[in-house]
Amino acid sequence: MDSCVTAAIAQQNYRLALLHASYGQRTERRERKSFEDIADFYGVHERLVVRFDIFGQIGGSALTDPGIAVPESGNSLAPHAEIPVTYVPFRNAHFLSAAVSWAETIGASAIFIGAVAEDSSGYPDCRPEYYQAFAEVIREGTRPETRIEIATPVIAMRKSEIVRRGAELGAPLGRTWSCYQFDDAACGTCDSCRLRLRAFDEAGLHDAIAYRVPVAR
Amino acid sequence: MDSCVTAAIAQQNYRLALLHASYGQRTERRERKSFEDIADFYGVHERLVVRFDIFGQIGGSALTDPGIAVPESGNSLAPHAEIPVTYVPFRNAHFLSAAVSWAETIGASAIFIGAVAEDSSGYPDCRPEYYQAFAEVIREGTRPETRIEIATPVIAMRKSEIVRRGAELGAPLGRTWSCYQFDDAACGTCDSCRLRLRAFDEAGLHDAIAYRVPVAR
Repeated sequence: MDSCVTAAIAQQNYRLALLHASYGQRTERRERKSFEDIADFYGVHERLVVRFDIFGQIGGSALTDPGIAVPESGNSLAPHAEIPVTYVPFRNAHFLSAAVSWAETIGASAIFIGAVAEDSSGYPDCRPEYYQAFAEVIREGTRPETRIEIATPVIAMRKSEIVRRGAELGAPLGRTWSCYQFDDAACGTCDSCRLRLRAFDEAGLHDAIAYRVPVAR
Repeated sequence: MDSCVTAAIAQQNYRLALLHASYGQRTERRERKSFEDIADFYGVHERLVVRFDIFGQIGGSALTDPGIAVPESGNSLAPHAEIPVTYVPFRNAHFLSAAVSWAETIGASAIFIGAVAEDSSGYPDCRPEYYQAFAEVIREGTRPETRIEIATPVIAMRKSEIVRRGAELGAPLGRTWSCYQFDDAACGTCDSCRLRLRAFDEAGLHDAIAYRVPVAR
């Protein structure tokens, strides 16, 4: 959802090239479908699907390690004191690295990423300071003539604001996927589902995706 | 060679865990063999081989794109005015990201990488400034309790100094591979071979690996 609204914002001023990451997450297949559906919606021809095998190899996260359960009633909706078990170690650096390599090759001028800092799950690699630091790595680590900026247009938004903004821009929110656990119908109980449901509720909008259990909406 | 000497330096003070990158480089198979040989030499059990498909997908470098020839008589041994075609866009960020994800998962305290700045091929992601910037990304993008430093012990060495240091430390230089082109015997003519041969020559040491053509040594 955050990525989709970020794409909706980016396409106002840029021609899109869309990157998808398959990294062994439980809902990999479903997220891939969402990626293609959203790319179809925006008529994007330049698409890159990158596989990251490493997370399945090293484990350590509930999203990629079958031995670690996805929490269903944590305190993620309260301010977060510690990093959740759904944190995938240093994940976004892999995604950004892929985006930079591709951007440098095709001559793209900006990388948009749908990171959300405050009103989200408390991952260290979703904060503005992290993207400022990574921008410096891009400046130092690419050709001298390469200029690629990182844009995080939804990073400071509340989730409900992201939903509202997406609706205003006509973004295909019904084609997005947020559930950490299942890929047929969303569980409605994992952190990501609960953040999504609360966001639609606060925005006063209907969430069109299928849920396994009846949810208040 | 640079990685091997870096490992030789690291193992003086650390227990090693070795990471290998297969990224569609022309000599992938041979480099993988060197990796296993060197890991065997140091008796390292913790090994991780990571595949990076993206470079083959996006092309743009002579090392990973069959449509771009590896230069055999460039000016790489002179101070470099521009980035060579063997530059793989933003490559080292992928390697470092893999290393950080693994380090955070297994609790490693340092990442050693054999980048060489001056006396090498002029890649932007081999300079000290780049590693300083990446260290900041690690601080910002991992768990608050995670402390992982980046060490680049050979970054300021001349290539001949790396050879000498390796020899002093008893590093298995004959198990390393540098050629960009071939994986049976080294070409002796690509930038990487010529830097290596000059380094052994200046160090007054014999290079034990096989070359396709008679080389001065």
